[in-house]
Amino acid sequence: PIQSTVESAQRFLENYQPGKWNIQYRLLTPVTPVPSDMEVSRSCTPKPIGELAREIGLISDEVELYGQCKAKISLSTLKRLKEQPDGKYIVVTGITPTPLGEGKSTTAIGLVQALGAHLGQNAFACVRQPSQGPTFGIKGGAAGGGYSQVVPMEEFNLHLTGDIHAITAANNLVAAAIDARIFHEATQSDQALYSRLVPLVDGVRNFSDVQIRRLQRLHIMKMDPATLTNDEISKFVRLDIDPDSITWQRVLDTNDRFLRTITIGQSPSEKGYTRTAQFDITVASEIMAVLALTNSLEDMRERLGKMVVASSKKGVPITTEDLGVSGALAVLMKDAIKPNLMQTLEGNPVFVHAGPFANIAHGNSSVLADKIALKVVGKDGFVVTEAGFGADIGMEKFFDIKCRYSGLQPHVVVLVATIRALKMHGGGPTVSADSRLREFEPLMGCSNLRKQIENARIFGVPVVVAVNAFKSDTEAELQLVVRLAKEAGALDAVKCTHWADGGKGAVALAEAVQRASQAPSHFQFLYDMELPVVEKIRIIAQKIYGANDIELLPEAELKIIQYTKQGFGNLPICMAKTHLSLSHNPEQKGVPTGFILPIRDVRASVGAGFLYPLVGTMSTMPGLPTRPCFYDIDLDPVTGEVNGLF
Amino acid sequence: PIQSTVESAQRFLENYQPGKWNIQYRLLTPVTPVPSDMEVSRSCTPKPIGELAREIGLISDEVELYGQCKAKISLSTLKRLKEQPDGKYIVVTGITPTPLGEGKSTTAIGLVQALGAHLGQNAFACVRQPSQGPTFGIKGGAAGGGYSQVVPMEEFNLHLTGDIHAITAANNLVAAAIDARIFHEATQSDQALYSRLVPLVDGVRNFSDVQIRRLQRLHIMKMDPATLTNDEISKFVRLDIDPDSITWQRVLDTNDRFLRTITIGQSPSEKGYTRTAQFDITVASEIMAVLALTNSLEDMRERLGKMVVASSKKGVPITTEDLGVSGALAVLMKDAIKPNLMQTLEGNPVFVHAGPFANIAHGNSSVLADKIALKVVGKDGFVVTEAGFGADIGMEKFFDIKCRYSGLQPHVVVLVATIRALKMHGGGPTVSADSRLREFEPLMGCSNLRKQIENARIFGVPVVVAVNAFKSDTEAELQLVVRLAKEAGALDAVKCTHWADGGKGAVALAEAVQRASQAPSHFQFLYDMELPVVEKIRIIAQKIYGANDIELLPEAELKIIQYTKQGFGNLPICMAKTHLSLSHNPEQKGVPTGFILPIRDVRASVGAGFLYPLVGTMSTMPGLPTRPCFYDIDLDPVTGEVNGLF
Repeated sequence: PIQSTVESAQRFLENYQPGKWNIQYRLLTPVTPVPSDMEVSRSCTPKPIGELAREIGLISDEVELYGQCKAKISLSTLKRLKEQPDGKYIVVTGITPTPLGEGKSTTAIGLVQALGAHLGQNAFACVRQPSQGPTFGIKGGAAGGGYSQVVPMEEFNLHLTGDIHAITAANNLVAAAIDARIFHEATQSDQALYSRLVPLVDGVRNFSDVQIRRLQRLHIMKMDPATLTNDEISKFVRLDIDPDSITWQRVLDTNDRFLRTITIGQSPSEKGYTRTAQFDITVASEIMAVLALTNSLEDMRERLGKMVVASSKKGVPITTEDLGVSGALAVLMKDAIKPNLMQTLEGNPVFVHAGPFANIAHGNSSVLADKIALKVVGKDGFVVTEAGFGADIGMEKFFDIKCRYSGLQPHVVVLVATIRALKMHGGGPTVSADSRLREFEPLMGCSNLRKQIENARIFGVPVVVAVNAFKSDTEAELQLVVRLAKEAGALDAVKCTHWADGGKGAVALAEAVQRASQAPSHFQFLYDMELPVVEKIRIIAQKIYGANDIELLPEAELKIIQYTKQGFGNLPICMAKTHLSLSHNPEQKGVPTGFILPIRDVRASVGAGFLYPLVGTMSTMPGLPTRPCFYDIDLDPVTGEVNGLF
Repeated sequence: PIQSTVESAQRFLENYQPGKWNIQYRLLTPVTPVPSDMEVSRSCTPKPIGELAREIGLISDEVELYGQCKAKISLSTLKRLKEQPDGKYIVVTGITPTPLGEGKSTTAIGLVQALGAHLGQNAFACVRQPSQGPTFGIKGGAAGGGYSQVVPMEEFNLHLTGDIHAITAANNLVAAAIDARIFHEATQSDQALYSRLVPLVDGVRNFSDVQIRRLQRLHIMKMDPATLTNDEISKFVRLDIDPDSITWQRVLDTNDRFLRTITIGQSPSEKGYTRTAQFDITVASEIMAVLALTNSLEDMRERLGKMVVASSKKGVPITTEDLGVSGALAVLMKDAIKPNLMQTLEGNPVFVHAGPFANIAHGNSSVLADKIALKVVGKDGFVVTEAGFGADIGMEKFFDIKCRYSGLQPHVVVLVATIRALKMHGGGPTVSADSRLREFEPLMGCSNLRKQIENARIFGVPVVVAVNAFKSDTEAELQLVVRLAKEAGALDAVKCTHWADGGKGAVALAEAVQRASQAPSHFQFLYDMELPVVEKIRIIAQKIYGANDIELLPEAELKIIQYTKQGFGNLPICMAKTHLSLSHNPEQKGVPTGFILPIRDVRASVGAGFLYPLVGTMSTMPGLPTRPCFYDIDLDPVTGEVNGLF
């Protein structure tokens, strides 16, 4: 039952002690060989999530239960704890990965299990919510793995508390509004539009709030609809959207390749106003990036209104505010903004919140989850957050975009490496789960590791390398990488076995992270936001990717001029580059040199707050293979258990 | 906090008394003039939903909280209470409505408020979840109105617990699977398809469960993939879907008119396999109808597998089972199947569950919500459920489809009438909220009421007419309708003012319903399921609509032959007809006579379990007007309050 405000405030005053949590961890008894993720997840009975919330000092008014294993945590927690100092802020990133991933999520979870259940520290993991598309497509779930997981894994991978669905709904309301508006403008006179947009209600016409703000942007300082001149009416009613300039796409959280390019508006009711359009996967929506980068409800409301969806035929940016839809977006997103509390296999708290694309967006979980977690762990606690893709992409964006907007100071970078990936960089074959690995060429393979350690150090933050052990690795290989990592400038490097052993397998890593968090950190951004767009792109390309220079293709050049003119030139840069190489060519492993990074185009996520240069073509809608994952997924109708998720 | 199974079972044994609930109602103090629905809703502080659940005898293991105002109720409740007799089952329907609706939902809520808070009976309302599309489009919300509402109205109207979003996800996974499958079959040999569909894993090929079931349907009784002949392989791997036969559409819960007709597959990656397709609003998905008609998790799993999405080029129906996606659908719908508990303004329990279209589907809330509610109210209690549109549509489908699948016996029909609608039937002007009404022509206007009373009596169930009073109605008008309704065969007829007065305004109605529920009911279906399809359609058209006969257009004739051949001829009929007239012509008010009902086409929802003849063209995707509702909707970022919903 939910307690009343009075009761819980009382309880809080009586029992709340900033400091160590009074938390019960679950004892793991790992089995060899490690069963499937689903079986491991099911072998554990999670604590009722309300109990976990109490253990970490949340009061009942701050906790909205969503069933027994998930809860949304109110942003009021931040206000209550605002005087509390933040804990240590740890980001987990990786070397340039193989297509299978090197276990960053698993390491983030394993590290938190070790810090909490084994070293007795307050520790909170913050991870991204996975898209449902790949879960039923080709990739399967994404809740960590083995004995380092978020549980129950089926709750983590399906629907969660509906945040991604809310984004789908909000995103597509904007899309529907754009095309409907173009249609209505094309088929009505100024006067007809005006009398509908500002209708007579009980004999009076009034502007709504969102319309008054549009008038102000148009410098029409009038409040009485009767006083507008015909010219002002025309300016007000006509967004005059250039259909070719629309950058806002529809989205679905489904891998539906047949929606990659479509023609819309072909019903006779749309009177021939057809156009080419596309659907992206929902996590590619700018609204997801807004959710991930926002600092408060007020800030989210503002960002959702600043999103630019197209230009007018005269080149004026058209926003969701101009469409009158921004308030509705905030309403649709009002619950999604609250981070979702779940737990690890060992009973540590985990926030699962936001999951923006790591190429066309910044690939990091939410600022708000990190901020709340940093308060909840307290001064001596640890928040472990994960950045998508390798350090050249996710970590760079974590520092230059996420930390810039959050104002948070990172303490330690954990860089995950696997022998498998190092072998690939050392000239091994393209990796698949089944393929046998070639002999190890350590020096060559470790070049990528070395460069990514350097990349982290550019930002002035201590680096700990986590060598994520696979059962096929030899001890000699693992120790060699540890040694080379230290030589390359890592403050420390340790082997970990959390996949097979749970938190126990990451105790050495946790101790290294504890030590590193005491080391001096001189955090700095890579570039100044006020630099010209081209300069900012060049700095990332040269310093982080190791490019000789960049090359702007004509479309990119035009867009940079346009965005600069529109006033968006001082936004941070979010590179949309392959994660499979430091360069733009996924085949180039190790540390490519002597290349010129081609910038094909540049796009803007003005509400989220970044420009994203496109290096090559980014797929924003995955497809279903011949035999999608769903062939194995079913529900046991008697027990209600989910089978076949992995 | 959530209690353990043991504790709650103990508490149940100690405290549970079948009989009257120990429930606290909220005292209403209605204000005149009645404020906006949003203001009324906000004037009330709802009980914590867990408290309401306890008051009505649910045990904590059966209640999954979704925030403070919503909970999902486990289907295990049905098992626990299986020996408990059902309460009285009341269906609320209406005369042929005006386009604005005549207050069926409001009456259902008001009646439950009266039965519970004013007459001390156990009473439960069961209503449909509204689509979010119209909420932001033209219609606004749908939680009842005035002082008869489900609260909080913004929670009711937005996302709820995500059931509609789950349907969107499930529906679109099927759609993506269809087109991906056609594509993969078109671009691969039998052997390539087979080796991908039945892949080598650790050196072995195995069929998955869903593949074994497909083999059985193909009468290939083999379990070892190595033993299939080339011919069997070809049969197994090729669904050979005829693209022109696809009846499965994509859906979104957004009013997006530009998706009514689209061309998909135009990206080069789809190699020219384009086709014309469409998006419907999510509530039009067959999965919504399945959710509404299912009796258990097992039954839902089965129905989700039986859905026919297309035919093969040889005319064989292709199901979701053939696509291998049926298990994933059940997994996506595993939480949606649990009814959502909310409350009325006066604190009565309400289930909000499922909201299928009332034309191409059956327009009734879920069987499971009704079944659980009937157990929870107990023998002497009342469950009030609402049927969409007028009695000729929603009520007929309630009896012939919903009650047929649920096995439940209805006790009373409440038929809602308004003076406004009767005036329209009496030759008044087309109704809009603002227009002034013409003088009343009672005898002519009441013909529609009389016919709809007869329609209810055909099923052998007592009828109570609720004359839903508007402030513009005169007492003489209201009393005249009451008298005419009784003369027309209603067991009783009463004026009600629950919109303005809350439950107090429906006490007379509640008493009439109590009396009627004691009257003998001789419930019978309108037609025998085993009759030929044409006969069943003719019976509905003649007996309920008053048609002289039906006329099958060629497409309908072909489909009836096809569906009968495919074995679907014995399904009940779900007429897709306008709700604005008893005939197929929305202009024909009152009781049209002498018409022939044209059947343009027939479609099948095999999983949901009905055939739906199309009378005219049904729009399955609404659009956005020039000034959609969202212009007024915004979030107060400081208080978090939603403004502008109505």
